Amino acid sequence: MKGTVLYGPRDVRYVERDDPKIVDPTDVIIRMSATCVCGSDLWPYRGVDLPGQPTLMGHEYCGIVEEVSRGVKKVKKGQFVVGSFFASDNTCEICNAGYQSRCTHAEYVGAGGAQSPYLRIPLADGTLVATPELPSNDMLPGLLATSDVLGTGWFGADAAAVAPGKTVAVVGDGAVGLCGVIAAKYIGAERIIIMSRHEARQKLAREFGATDIVTERGDEGVARIKELTKGLGAHSTIEAVGSQESMLQAIRSTRPGGHVGFVGVSHGVELPGQELFYSEVHLHGGPAPVRRYLPELIDLVLRGAIDPGKVFDLTLPLEQVAEGYRAMDERRAIKTLLTV
Amino acid sequence: MKGTVLYGPRDVRYVERDDPKIVDPTDVIIRMSATCVCGSDLWPYRGVDLPGQPTLMGHEYCGIVEEVSRGVKKVKKGQFVVGSFFASDNTCEICNAGYQSRCTHAEYVGAGGAQSPYLRIPLADGTLVATPELPSNDMLPGLLATSDVLGTGWFGADAAAVAPGKTVAVVGDGAVGLCGVIAAKYIGAERIIIMSRHEARQKLAREFGATDIVTERGDEGVARIKELTKGLGAHSTIEAVGSQESMLQAIRSTRPGGHVGFVGVSHGVELPGQELFYSEVHLHGGPAPVRRYLPELIDLVLRGAIDPGKVFDLTLPLEQVAEGYRAMDERRAIKTLLTV
Repeated sequence: MKGTVLYGPRDVRYVERDDPKIVDPTDVIIRMSATCVCGSDLWPYRGVDLPGQPTLMGHEYCGIVEEVSRGVKKVKKGQFVVGSFFASDNTCEICNAGYQSRCTHAEYVGAGGAQSPYLRIPLADGTLVATPELPSNDMLPGLLATSDVLGTGWFGADAAAVAPGKTVAVVGDGAVGLCGVIAAKYIGAERIIIMSRHEARQKLAREFGATDIVTERGDEGVARIKELTKGLGAHSTIEAVGSQESMLQAIRSTRPGGHVGFVGVSHGVELPGQELFYSEVHLHGGPAPVRRYLPELIDLVLRGAIDPGKVFDLTLPLEQVAEGYRAMDERRAIKTLLTV
Repeated sequence: MKGTVLYGPRDVRYVERDDPKIVDPTDVIIRMSATCVCGSDLWPYRGVDLPGQPTLMGHEYCGIVEEVSRGVKKVKKGQFVVGSFFASDNTCEICNAGYQSRCTHAEYVGAGGAQSPYLRIPLADGTLVATPELPSNDMLPGLLATSDVLGTGWFGADAAAVAPGKTVAVVGDGAVGLCGVIAAKYIGAERIIIMSRHEARQKLAREFGATDIVTERGDEGVARIKELTKGLGAHSTIEAVGSQESMLQAIRSTRPGGHVGFVGVSHGVELPGQELFYSEVHLHGGPAPVRRYLPELIDLVLRGAIDPGKVFDLTLPLEQVAEGYRAMDERRAIKTLLTV
C-alpha cells in the first residue's frame, strides 16, 4: 500500500510502503476511516528532533477492525474503534492509576504510521475502544479527535485541576489548546482566557466557550492575565505548545497554589528551579493518557454534547497529505483531516 | 539586646543589635522561648546566595507575646504563640486556598532575625497560633519544630500526595526530610524509604517510621528505589535538599502519575523539560505554607501523637549560636535548638 513518509525537513510524501502485519498475538490491523496531521508532527516536519529518515508518519486513527490476532479477546473484526498513540495493556498498576501512556508495556502506535490506509495496533484489547455501532460519516471528525487532540486537551485541563467556577488560562491556540477550551467549558470553568493572535482560532475558541482573548505575549501576556484575575493569576493554566516561552508564560500566569497542566510536547525547555519553587504552582503534564478518557469522550461526541471535530478546518484525501502538512505549517489550517 | 548576625561565610556572631519595635498596627513583639538553626540557614552560612552583610539570622520561633500593637484583635499579651517564617493575613484569597506562604500581604518574619531574644511579628492575628495554655518546657522542642521544620516536612508529604497505603521515598535526611517521615507515617503510608548514609539520622528515621534505608545516591539510589517498588518507583517522593542532584533523584524515583513534593530551598536547579514531560510525575513545592498546618500540628504535639522535637540533637544557649551553626555545617548535629 501507499502511506505517509517523512524524508527530511518539509519533505513529506505519500509513497509505497510495507503493509502492516500482525506481529504479536495481541495485535489487530485496522482499516483507517480517517486520520489527521498533529501539531506535534510539525516538530520533525520542521526539522526539530528529526528522527532517522525515512520515517512513517501519523499517530491519530479511527477505523474498522480488519484482522484479529489469536490472543485478542474483546476486539472483534468489523468493529469501529478508536485508540491512543500509545498502546497500553490497560491492566498494569500504572494503567490502573490512569497513566496508560506510561503503561509498563506501552508501545508507540505511531511507529506503524497512522497516515496510511491500514495500521497495526498492538495490545488491541487494552488500547482500543469500540463504538456501540458503526458511526455515520459525519461523526468521523469528532471521533477521530478523541484519539489524541481532544484527549490531550482534556488531560491538560485535568492536569491543571480545572473545576467548576475556576478561572482557566490556555497558552496555545492550536487544536490541543482549543480542545482544552472545550474541556474547561464542559467541566464548568467560569472564565476561560485563551492567548491567541489568530482571528479564526479566536473565533473557534469563543465558540468552544472562551470568555476572554489575550493577544499579548511573554511578560505582557502574563501582565494581561494578572489584570484579568485581580492580580493573582489563573487557578488553572493549560500549556499546549511545549516551548520555553510558553512554559514560563504558563507558570507565570498561574496563581500560587494554582495548577499548570502542560501537554505541548517539550522542546528545548529548561525550567529554572528557583522560580518554580517560589511560584508555588502545581506542575503536571506529559504525553496524555488518552485511553483514560476515551470511553467518556467517545460517548460525549456520539451524544453531541461536545463538537471537537470543528478543529478540523481542512479536509483532504490522504494522498494529498503533503498539502495538509504545508497548510498547518503556514498556519493556514488549524488541523488537517485526511480521508481514506 | 544581642542577637545573631551573619557577617560572611561561616562568620556568624552573637552581637549587639537593635531591639525590635512595633512598626504597624498589626504587629506584636514576642519574647523568644526557644529558637533554632535551620538547614536553609546553612546556604548563606556556606556563602551560597549570600545576602548583603551584616544580616540578622533565624526564622523559627515560639514565645510569649510581650507587646501588642493597637490594631491586633485576637492575639493577647502573655499568650504562648507559634508562627511561620512568612507572616500572612490569613484572610486573602491565596491564604484561603491554603497558600499563606504566598499571602498577598506576605512578609518575611525572618527579616527581623529570630535567633534573638525578641522578635517583631507582622500581621500577628493572621500569622500566630496560640496554645490553649502556657506549655511546659519539655514541650518547647516539639512546638518550636512546628514553626518550620515540621510544617515544611508536612507540606512536602502533602505536596507529594502521601496517602494511606502508599510507598513514599524521602530524599534528604536532614530535619525536614525526617519530619517528612513523621508526616508520611502519621498519614498512613505503608512503606517509607529514606535515602541516608548517616547512622544517627537513619536511626531516627526508623524511629519516626521509615521502613527502608537506601544508602546509594544518584542513579544507583534511583535503581535501588525501583528495585524496592517492583520497578515502578515510589508513589510519593519528598525532596528535602534543593539541589540539582536531589531534584533529579526525586523525579526519577517516582512512578509515572506519582507525585514529587519538593521543599528543599532550590539552589542552582534547572529542570530538563523533556525529562519532566516524559516522567509524567506531578511536581509541587516551594516555601511551605506552614500556617495552614499549624493548628493541627500544635495539637498533635501537645497530645503527644508525634514527637518532632527529637530532630533537635543539640541544645545550646542562644549566645553559643555560632557553635550551633558549626555543628550542623559539619553534620555533627541534625538540628540545633537554642535556649533563651
